[in-house]
Amino acid sequence: MNNFKFKNPTELIFGQGMIKELPKRVPAGVPVLVTFGGGSVRHNGVYEAVKEALSGYNMVEFWGIESNPKIETLRRAVALGKEHNCQFVLAVGGGSVIDGSKLIAAAIPYDGDPWDLVLKGYSRDTILPLGTVLTIPATGSEMNSGAVISREETKEKLVFRGNFPVFSVLDPEVTFSLPPYQIACGLADSFVHVMEQYMTTPGQSRLMDRWAESVLLTIIEIAPLIRQKPHDYDLMADFMLSATMALNGFIALGVTQDWATHMIGHEITALTGLTHGHTLAIILPGTLRVQGHDHKRDKMLQYAERVWHITAGSEEERIDEAIRRTEEFFREIGLKTRLEEMHIGTNVTDEVERRFVERGVAYGEALDVDGPMARRILEACQ
Amino acid sequence: MNNFKFKNPTELIFGQGMIKELPKRVPAGVPVLVTFGGGSVRHNGVYEAVKEALSGYNMVEFWGIESNPKIETLRRAVALGKEHNCQFVLAVGGGSVIDGSKLIAAAIPYDGDPWDLVLKGYSRDTILPLGTVLTIPATGSEMNSGAVISREETKEKLVFRGNFPVFSVLDPEVTFSLPPYQIACGLADSFVHVMEQYMTTPGQSRLMDRWAESVLLTIIEIAPLIRQKPHDYDLMADFMLSATMALNGFIALGVTQDWATHMIGHEITALTGLTHGHTLAIILPGTLRVQGHDHKRDKMLQYAERVWHITAGSEEERIDEAIRRTEEFFREIGLKTRLEEMHIGTNVTDEVERRFVERGVAYGEALDVDGPMARRILEACQ
Repeated sequence: MNNFKFKNPTELIFGQGMIKELPKRVPAGVPVLVTFGGGSVRHNGVYEAVKEALSGYNMVEFWGIESNPKIETLRRAVALGKEHNCQFVLAVGGGSVIDGSKLIAAAIPYDGDPWDLVLKGYSRDTILPLGTVLTIPATGSEMNSGAVISREETKEKLVFRGNFPVFSVLDPEVTFSLPPYQIACGLADSFVHVMEQYMTTPGQSRLMDRWAESVLLTIIEIAPLIRQKPHDYDLMADFMLSATMALNGFIALGVTQDWATHMIGHEITALTGLTHGHTLAIILPGTLRVQGHDHKRDKMLQYAERVWHITAGSEEERIDEAIRRTEEFFREIGLKTRLEEMHIGTNVTDEVERRFVERGVAYGEALDVDGPMARRILEACQ
Repeated sequence: MNNFKFKNPTELIFGQGMIKELPKRVPAGVPVLVTFGGGSVRHNGVYEAVKEALSGYNMVEFWGIESNPKIETLRRAVALGKEHNCQFVLAVGGGSVIDGSKLIAAAIPYDGDPWDLVLKGYSRDTILPLGTVLTIPATGSEMNSGAVISREETKEKLVFRGNFPVFSVLDPEVTFSLPPYQIACGLADSFVHVMEQYMTTPGQSRLMDRWAESVLLTIIEIAPLIRQKPHDYDLMADFMLSATMALNGFIALGVTQDWATHMIGHEITALTGLTHGHTLAIILPGTLRVQGHDHKRDKMLQYAERVWHITAGSEEERIDEAIRRTEEFFREIGLKTRLEEMHIGTNVTDEVERRFVERGVAYGEALDVDGPMARRILEACQ
């Protein structure tokens, strides 16, 4: 096991009706910037519940944080927060609203352009506290310190190291109105978050391996049931908890990580607008086809046996079968798994390779996913 | 899944050589009360490493916190801390040193008798911050807010709700010098911590069930290997991480808990002095013999299949086999599993029953472990 330091101070406030707990956590008597996405919370009761819980508060509302939140939008939210001297940020929405709000909370007390903070970081001492009300299980942003911010003019999508939310309210009932495509993308996102922390050198930690496999097994078990019963509270609670635990650090203690699939996926989203979770459902099987017989071989055999219960056949056959089952899983939850099905052509592959080469980067546990390797993976996703 | 609130702010600092991180975490320029047990840290290098890391600090040393820390001892530590105006407490030792230090950290700023705080609790705002250097994987105290404090004169052992350590340093190498009996008790303690949070109503959370099973499977896998290779770093790292994760709240999200085995075990320790982890290895099989076919039946079948891979036989046979394997596991790690083997007679059973009846208490998930039920369980441990 590798040496590590771990701290996750976010308070989870989980369950039915828990939005009512907001007044115990949001400071009273100061202006609060409340951030939203496109407006779905107006239809599913979340907006009303938040308004009711915080009646009497000085709420300054900012609407319109889009999927893959853009710096151009966030600058306007920061200006609004400065104008009203907001002292707390409450994000109400999915991962994009929360990601964007992490930057907003850092940038309100900052004098320069918020994009500086994406590029250079910031001092944790000068950040506003952030709370969240999560509406879409997917990104894990509600219990981690990361955020991904896009820049329209350059079609860039960069990781921002923000702060942990001080609290996050997770009420599984708010997921009942999610469209099936959003649920599918959330399931895929959660699944691949785990794989990025699991599909690495085996034997680093028995416990972390098992905890990662536990999240995968749970997602695989609940996904078809959710399609049948999207209003089943316990199912959605398991989904919501799994999505949070997939990316809050709990399964990453002392083990290496990969994240190459994500880095390629971010480029696909930046270039084509395809939803993040969906890009992962396409790229992951491609990554495994290219690397699964290579340095990921031993962990692939473990994954085949423990997650998919594949024990028959040669090692090559078991690995291939595990990749096939992984892709099939994504298809069964309703996602396409090939670039061409999404009408994404070789020009995108060319551009991803060009960007990786231009930046001189190489991703993945083995730092071998450079431009040419990204091309190989994308060609394996056609 | 039940509604829940969860927050665990302790920073884990895990790995080889990590005691060197202390100066980054312990405040300089204030007197620090450093608490120790009986002196084993003088022989395994931990004391020297701490002294070296904190050279230049104003360290006030208190030695002699015993197993099952006694209020009579802790009062002396509190007096020392007050005398030197200590502003930070650093516990260096196993669960007993850490437990005792939670009370010390709360009591130094308190004007009355520390025992008041065990009985009545305290305000979190007035507590001193506590850091720990763990030397024995077992209790999980290094990453939770609980403590168990004994009172010699009344032979009582009560739970104290303390504060989370701000940080805990876990270096697996410090466990290399532990005697086999302490390792066995630590393994048993960790195993039963998980069982207290797992052997309850099934189907509350698929993910929590699997995470609990993961810790059990890991302990079962590593225990015989540790007996062969007690100086294997990766094995001891897996043990240390499992012991912490067994009782830091991570496997208890949204699910009910039991703790009846612990409540009976605490009485056995209070009355006979038998090491905590060893009492659990005796009581747990008894609890399962009495309740495993009853309201714990469904979870016992799941436990039999997923943890012990028992699939053959009738339901009754599978449950009995799982209990047999559990007891056998404790015996294989070197512990006796029957009261009579430890020369604990029926007078102790009588006294435990009398105490439970006198207190009017009933423990366990179903709140059915009252005096008479405790008697049944203890009789099943003979």
